[in-house]
Amino acid sequence: MNGKTIDEIKVGDTAEFAKTVSESDIYQYAGVTGDFNPAHINEDYASKTFFKTRIAHGMLSAGFISNVLGNQLPGPGAVYIRQDLNFLAPVRISDTITAVVEVVDVNTGKNRITLKTRCFNQERIIVIDGEAVLSPVKKQ
Amino acid sequence: MNGKTIDEIKVGDTAEFAKTVSESDIYQYAGVTGDFNPAHINEDYASKTFFKTRIAHGMLSAGFISNVLGNQLPGPGAVYIRQDLNFLAPVRISDTITAVVEVVDVNTGKNRITLKTRCFNQERIIVIDGEAVLSPVKKQ
Amino acid sequence: MNGKTIDEIKVGDTAEFAKTVSESDIYQYAGVTGDFNPAHINEDYASKTFFKTRIAHGMLSAGFISNVLGNQLPGPGAVYIRQDLNFLAPVRISDTITAVVEVVDVNTGKNRITLKTRCFNQERIIVIDGEAVLSPVKKQ
Amino acid sequence: MNGKTIDEIKVGDTAEFAKTVSESDIYQYAGVTGDFNPAHINEDYASKTFFKTRIAHGMLSAGFISNVLGNQLPGPGAVYIRQDLNFLAPVRISDTITAVVEVVDVNTGKNRITLKTRCFNQERIIVIDGEAVLSPVKKQ
Repeated sequence: MNGKTIDEIKVGDTAEFAKTVSESDIYQYAGVTGDFNPAHINEDYASKTFFKTRIAHGMLSAGFISNVLGNQLPGPGAVYIRQDLNFLAPVRISDTITAVVEVVDVNTGKNRITLKTRCFNQERIIVIDGEAVLSPVKKQ
Repeated sequence: MNGKTIDEIKVGDTAEFAKTVSESDIYQYAGVTGDFNPAHINEDYASKTFFKTRIAHGMLSAGFISNVLGNQLPGPGAVYIRQDLNFLAPVRISDTITAVVEVVDVNTGKNRITLKTRCFNQERIIVIDGEAVLSPVKKQ
Repeated sequence: MNGKTIDEIKVGDTAEFAKTVSESDIYQYAGVTGDFNPAHINEDYASKTFFKTRIAHGMLSAGFISNVLGNQLPGPGAVYIRQDLNFLAPVRISDTITAVVEVVDVNTGKNRITLKTRCFNQERIIVIDGEAVLSPVKKQ
Repeated sequence: MNGKTIDEIKVGDTAEFAKTVSESDIYQYAGVTGDFNPAHINEDYASKTFFKTRIAHGMLSAGFISNVLGNQLPGPGAVYIRQDLNFLAPVRISDTITAVVEVVDVNTGKNRITLKTRCFNQERIIVIDGEAVLSPVKKQ
């Protein structure tokens, strides 16, 4: 059930996960995190903002990045050390978001890998970019 | 309904939000993000890991930071530009997590503020630290 | 609170339950079962499939059958022994699904009943058919 | 994003998915399917039954089988044709359920595969067994 060890990972490896973000995703996410910013859950307010409608929490899409890292590359057993996130564009209800991670550095001595982490929408616009550092599971 | 403008914010301002993380929080968060890493949702697996039990997704606690930023300081209408996260300690079911943000820089010319962002558990152990950059809402 | 005993059940008895399947039903169901097959939660992918849009999990509609069996016929206290399911047509967001069960055999000696179990959509197209075997609650 | 074609599948191939079933899983599942049988959501009633406590819906665990079939073996793009389920033992809150599927027949002419489908609990007791038939995605 464990993920990849550092010997099984090389620069350029990629993995991804995609989901259409629904209104119910945003509402459940708000319910769990308590983030009831009107930009996310008040259409009357949101319709008068720059974005014209409710938008998803940036951290919700960031969760798709964590999904790919934790389940695929490097996968279960890894320790999540650092994540930097730049929020570049809004995610609206019904946008399909694809989180893509790509290994950019493998430090075997420290058992650490660095990945470029990005989320795109269905029009290939980057909504989040950033970088993650993890310690893959050790060989057993 | 809007948050603070940059003129209403000064270095040293703080705000916080706290929640006891329940099993259902972790499960709903997994359900929204698709992150079914066994460390989060498989007690049989997790009991054999270093942490001995299921732990919450790091990004779930990060959502509490986003909550404070979006709802209190600077509050609604702000644009979330950047968030850096260092995951320092695990969050277990029933831990009470407090997200605290503190303004460390106010750049009036660029309309940008920088905040130190931290999550503590009930024993005052830091589980996440990092930094956020936002553009507060403009005066209307 | 208990359901019918075998003496209260005869061949030809029927019961039903109907619900309009929402996007949030599909998303919550995915979140509980971990089934993030893109056919269910990725509109960008699903729009290029034979069905042209996201479809509900077949097992979600099967849950409506289990609902009727467990709550109405034979009802609480019964033991669910066997369920066969043939998936015949897709269920799309906003379809109204009616689960209908009909008793086709009553075996008093073994305390077992067999039911024909079907789900229809609003156009009376059969989306699932199959058969269930249960042991009704015993007289107390 | 698509799953395996029939040429990539052979008898004996297996895949699995595991999750600890939480109270919130049972409650959300009840909320989606409308199956409020007191055996699942009424502890006062359930404590007086043979099982002594609330049990999960059998169809909830069946959803884990569908998860493995739809996401791993054969994976996205497959058509789910038939599923037989024998409910053999109850699932209680906090049980860890592993759904395991194993290919037992590959019919290349008809593009159909048959799999043995089982769910175990953490004590390796079989809670569901049965069989599934699917049409894997066609080569493109």
